[in-house]
Amino acid sequence: MQIARRSLIGLAATMVGSSALPNFSKAKAPLSNAQNAGFYHYKIGDIEATAITDGFAERPLAGFIKNAELVDVKAVLSQSAMPQETLRIPFTTTVLNIGGQLVLIDTGNGDMGSPKSGSWMANFKAAGFNPEQVDLVIFSHFHGDHINGYRLQSGVSPFKNAQIMVPSIEWAFWMDDGQFSRSPEGMKGAFANVRRVFDPVKDKVIQYEAGKEIVPGITSIAAFGHTPGHMAYMVSSGSNKHILMSDTTNHTALFVRRPEWTVIFDMDAEQAITSRRKMLDMAVSDGAEVSFYHAPFPATGRIVKDGSTYALVPTPWSTVL
Amino acid sequence: MQIARRSLIGLAATMVGSSALPNFSKAKAPLSNAQNAGFYHYKIGDIEATAITDGFAERPLAGFIKNAELVDVKAVLSQSAMPQETLRIPFTTTVLNIGGQLVLIDTGNGDMGSPKSGSWMANFKAAGFNPEQVDLVIFSHFHGDHINGYRLQSGVSPFKNAQIMVPSIEWAFWMDDGQFSRSPEGMKGAFANVRRVFDPVKDKVIQYEAGKEIVPGITSIAAFGHTPGHMAYMVSSGSNKHILMSDTTNHTALFVRRPEWTVIFDMDAEQAITSRRKMLDMAVSDGAEVSFYHAPFPATGRIVKDGSTYALVPTPWSTVL
Repeated sequence: MQIARRSLIGLAATMVGSSALPNFSKAKAPLSNAQNAGFYHYKIGDIEATAITDGFAERPLAGFIKNAELVDVKAVLSQSAMPQETLRIPFTTTVLNIGGQLVLIDTGNGDMGSPKSGSWMANFKAAGFNPEQVDLVIFSHFHGDHINGYRLQSGVSPFKNAQIMVPSIEWAFWMDDGQFSRSPEGMKGAFANVRRVFDPVKDKVIQYEAGKEIVPGITSIAAFGHTPGHMAYMVSSGSNKHILMSDTTNHTALFVRRPEWTVIFDMDAEQAITSRRKMLDMAVSDGAEVSFYHAPFPATGRIVKDGSTYALVPTPWSTVL
Repeated sequence: MQIARRSLIGLAATMVGSSALPNFSKAKAPLSNAQNAGFYHYKIGDIEATAITDGFAERPLAGFIKNAELVDVKAVLSQSAMPQETLRIPFTTTVLNIGGQLVLIDTGNGDMGSPKSGSWMANFKAAGFNPEQVDLVIFSHFHGDHINGYRLQSGVSPFKNAQIMVPSIEWAFWMDDGQFSRSPEGMKGAFANVRRVFDPVKDKVIQYEAGKEIVPGITSIAAFGHTPGHMAYMVSSGSNKHILMSDTTNHTALFVRRPEWTVIFDMDAEQAITSRRKMLDMAVSDGAEVSFYHAPFPATGRIVKDGSTYALVPTPWSTVL
């Protein structure tokens, strides 16, 4: 023990003021400089779900919410240990393996997103999947961050074998020539993009309605307002349920806490608020696990009532399935 | 559009009552049946930290806390969306790359833990490290789930090139023959295990005291009570700080919310409560990010005051470093 104490003293004396640990290094370890692959598996009964991150977009916080003071927005973000100048909006898609059938709910940004997005395909492959295995792609709505992964800038779709399901109201709105021509200049790009993605397959898409079991285990839920036909889903297997909230919130840290706040992306603000409250109440009353497209990876949790508002409690990461 | 609608109707009709999606599958996707590798990188200034999970131990909730009613314990767990019959206690060690020097804070269960632990080495390697690269192992305290990874059942240590630092009070307690012989029967195994791990290197360990910068960037903090010499750490680089809380709590979901509760593993319950409050208050007043050995992976977050108690707000998973 005396020897050990002397070693400590010598060590401490040597190291004060030095920038490295002397005599410690045998093989200098390189920095990793890249994060772990962004996929996370979880079970919904017999269904194997996989959260796949497509990275994030960074936006100035100012101007993001239409009906709140910036100081109040920052106060809510601070409750979630998040930076308060710029907002990171994460993208998390869901893959469902239902009896060996591979179903995607939305496809991420593809190669047309913000600089910190675009990692979807790498993470999807890291999870052990390949795009040819995808049997079905279900779209929640037609914003670019949900559909651009289906068709790359080159015009090619990675999902050669997949059928496509789209909300009927969403399809009717965005594919209507009158809506396109009457839309404000700022929205014409979004209309054009929907056509870029879907025109090559427009005779093959399968439209679906709200409130139907659109495939076994997946029931669509009307969550209109964010876009005209925006859908959420109840995924169930046996007695297990999971609610895919889609864009019920544009960031859980903000709009779960303050469902009455309106994001610039909600096309019908009042309808979106109504849908948001409906979905959050459903999550509370069902006690179901939920996931959000725009929540920090892996984006799963439960909604609890917290006084007059709500909170998202993340599901503890499980190392086993 | 009429064609699409007919397709939907046909599809729905076909699928009701069937267990798979007819005509969808081109290549049956296998279930993954295993979780993503359990490592997560984050920066503390110039230091690259990596959380490595060693899985978890599952315990009956009953009897885990000495001074609380089971119904109250379950109520707190339900706030964290956790099961309420058995408790999963996660193990998350921290790797610090400080200027190319690879430092471990504790080593996990090795091959002597519970059935759902023991994944540490696989996750460590998946993160791109190998055990020969480890320059230094710093132990927080001498419970088996922190030290057994240092020496496998075979007697071999995977960390051939690593120096070893241990808390001086911890060393004095567990290595003292009088303490060993006077200890109750139920603790003799723990004493024997400490000697199994450290006897082969007992002339080489470097002892350290509380409240010292034991290597550049890592300052030890006295957090006694859980064990006699139990240590936490302040890791700092430039103006960035991160507090490694070690076993300040035995599960964040319980003891951050209720720091006055006493776990069966706290050797001096009153001292442990005092240390717990001190560490939680420090985390609040410093505003520093924290990590806990026994928090759900990746075990990082911030401590906020929540009325008369505390809450751990997990750090949003970042897809970039």
